[in-house]
Order: sequence, then C-alpha cells, then structure tokens
Amino acid sequence: MVTKNQIKGIKSLHQKKYRKEHQLFIAEGVKVIQELLQSSFVLEHLYVTNEMEFDVPAHQRTIVSADDLKKMSALTTTPNCLAVFHCLESKSLDFSDWVVALDDVRDPGNLGTIIRLCDWFGIRHIVCSLETVDCYNPKVIQATMGSVSRVNIAYTDLATRLKKVDAPIYGTFLGGENIYEMKGVQPGVIVMGNEANGISTEIEQLVSRKITIPRFGNLQQTESLNVAMATSIVLSEFRRSVFNEQ
Amino acid sequence: MVTKNQIKGIKSLHQKKYRKEHQLFIAEGVKVIQELLQSSFVLEHLYVTNEMEFDVPAHQRTIVSADDLKKMSALTTTPNCLAVFHCLESKSLDFSDWVVALDDVRDPGNLGTIIRLCDWFGIRHIVCSLETVDCYNPKVIQATMGSVSRVNIAYTDLATRLKKVDAPIYGTFLGGENIYEMKGVQPGVIVMGNEANGISTEIEQLVSRKITIPRFGNLQQTESLNVAMATSIVLSEFRRSVFNEQ
Repeated sequence: MVTKNQIKGIKSLHQKKYRKEHQLFIAEGVKVIQELLQSSFVLEHLYVTNEMEFDVPAHQRTIVSADDLKKMSALTTTPNCLAVFHCLESKSLDFSDWVVALDDVRDPGNLGTIIRLCDWFGIRHIVCSLETVDCYNPKVIQATMGSVSRVNIAYTDLATRLKKVDAPIYGTFLGGENIYEMKGVQPGVIVMGNEANGISTEIEQLVSRKITIPRFGNLQQTESLNVAMATSIVLSEFRRSVFNEQ
Repeated sequence: MVTKNQIKGIKSLHQKKYRKEHQLFIAEGVKVIQELLQSSFVLEHLYVTNEMEFDVPAHQRTIVSADDLKKMSALTTTPNCLAVFHCLESKSLDFSDWVVALDDVRDPGNLGTIIRLCDWFGIRHIVCSLETVDCYNPKVIQATMGSVSRVNIAYTDLATRLKKVDAPIYGTFLGGENIYEMKGVQPGVIVMGNEANGISTEIEQLVSRKITIPRFGNLQQTESLNVAMATSIVLSEFRRSVFNEQ
C-alpha cells in the first residue's frame, strides 16, 4: 500500500526542482532498475505490482496496484516496477583522458543516448553546461539503460571550466577538418552543441580544432545529423584513429 | 472547418491497416511538412491552426482549431499543422551500391533515425523484412525529418530477396571481424537486426561477412549499443574505409 501523499512525493520527482531538493530520482522497468541496483547508486525504495525477483530487503519494497504505479510513472507506457534512488554527487573531472562536453543539449533522449555512447566508448566523464537537461530526468534515466551508473556527469559553467583545460578541445562545425582525414588526434574534450543552434559563440572561441562530418549524399539535402548520431560518429572515429595510430 | 467524420478518417491513418487501405499517411510540424512538400510526395490536404506560410493551393488547406488538430495528431505535443500525403510506391531495389537491410526493426524512432542516417551517408535503398515497423507510421515520419522522401524503402520477404543478391552481405554479430580493421570492404548489403534478438538465424546464414563493433569501455558492462547507434557507426566506418581505399 502507498498513500496518496507518497504517490504525490514520488510524482514530484518528475520535476528537476524536487529532485534537487530531495536528491532523489526515479527509474522504471526491470532492466534499468537491475543495472542501477548493481551500481554505486543507493536505493531509497522499490515499488512493484507483483512479487518480482529483485534482491531488495523487504522494508525497501512495496507492492502497489498497477493504477498507483501509473500515477507515479513518468512514462507513457508504465512498466510493472519503479524505483526511487539517491542522486550521486559528481566526482571531480579528469581531463587527462577523453571528456565529452555538452553545450546546452536539451532533449532527454539525446542526453540518454550520449551517456550510453560514452559508456560504450569508455569515456568516463561528461561535463554539461548548466542549461543542459538534467541527467536525473526520468526520460534520460530511461534512455541510458543503466549506463548512467558508469559515467561521471558534472554540471558547471562550461566556458569557465573549459578555459582551464590544457588538452585539445574539439567541436563539430561546418567547414572544419574532415574527421575521416584528421591526423595527430590526441585525447581531449569533444564539445557537442545544442539541437537547434549548435555550439555557442562563447564556447566556439575555446575550440582548438574544428571538425566536420562530411555527408556522402546529395548536397541539396537540408537536414543534418542529430546530436546523438553525430556523437556516435565522432566517438567511433576518434577511438579508431587514436587506436590505429598507437 | 472539419467534420467529425473527417477527423475520424485522419485519425484512422494512425493505424497501418488504414494507411494501407487508403495509401495515405500523416506528417506533422512545419519542418517535416515543408520537406515533404518539396519532394516527390503528393499532398492530399493540409490542416493548420492559422494562416501559415505554406505554398499550398487554397482548396488543399483548411484552418482548424487547436482542439481539432489535437484530435487528429499522433504526437504527444501537437504542432500547429498536420498534412495528409499519398504514399509512394517503392522503386525497384538497386544492389549495385550500398543497401541497408532491416531484419525486424520494431521501434519507430529507430527506423526513423536509420532512414535519416542512410540519407546522410548517401544510401538510396532500404529493404525491410515484413515484420519491420511501417515507414509511414507517424512516429517514423516524424523522426526522419523529411529524409523519408530521399530514400527508397521496400518491404519484402527478406530471406527470399537476399538469396538473390550477389554482393557481399554484412551483418553485426558478437565475435565477427573488428570493423575498424576490416580490409577490402566492397559495397554490399548491411543487415541490421531486431532490437531484442538481433539478426535472425535464417538471415544469419546469408551473411557473408560478420562484423563486430568493439567496445572500448569496461568489459563487465552488460548493455549494448542500440540498433540506430550501431547503424551510424557501421555506415560511417564503411563510408570512410571504402573512400580511403579508393
């Protein structure tokens, strides 16, 4: 059983303001919850619609009706379990290896995909501008499929932080170096920009190497790659070229 | 003004059955509609909430209330315009250049992203198994951002069709060739599999070169790349390596 007030409390975590205040977030579905339970995230409470196979102490789990779970859920299709976890404090950033910097990425699905890509390509740190969507947003958590537990994500004034970085700073622009022909790529920061406006002028001034993903299709086409697809191509290509040059 | 019956008719196009029957589909939002208007797709009718700058004859446009548009819309957030277009008959497939084959890709967002990636990388043909999500599904149309107009998409019995192909057939599997080290890549068919089950056994037997995208991160991680991210990496890498070898 859950009370109306408990449901209200959980539902408030759909909003960034209350996630900040309580330092809690929600995750939904067996796969994501299992991954988070096996990570450094600490469970606050688990809500399930039936006796499921989660390795969670009895006092931290409650069986609820499908209706109540639907009220708590942030997803269009409600799964049969929802968990509340404690947020993690972000660790200090390590610029001696690859870091991905996000300049105002707004779409939760894009951030989730980028976190998952960083996890795949062994990138341990993401630094986000303060305008970038919150990584504890339920849709971000869902899209990461658990990889949020393996990547350190910090929010800060991006320009101020990047000014202190000695490593190369890469960013995608029109008219930059062809990414497939770049030589001497050294580990550094890869900046990815806003969905509509790309990288801001302030951050552009800090970029030391501008890169371009050339298109192979018809040049009349107007649409560009979205930020998550562009990230997957840049990370794949940089990992390949650095690996092959070593 | 639109009648209740007209709204019902448009809403029926959310379902594949009625799209097939009427050979019509819906597209929403200024950007997607503009792209489709400039393509070979033929407009049936445009519905807008105010006098917008579309180059469409008066008899093909109707001003409707935001409420009525919401009833027609397939999206969670309804834009201020919705258009009904005629489906295109798929052209015959050309296996002399790269073709992407989809073996049971079910998620509309994934198919939309894959169509957009093919457009970017100049791949003109996609052949889909009969179980693959319909390319005229409103969520697919939305995710393609108009690039559905530049890629030929055919649905067929995939195994039967691929048996007739002379070109190399590539597919991603665990334990295949490392994609970053492959030599002698010739244009052919790239098979991408189902979100949960990958490439089916029947299609696997037709694959002539098995490829693997190696991960660079911690090997304990359980989660894999999703099919759209994997497609972006394979297309980028094949385009680069074939380009560099020529």
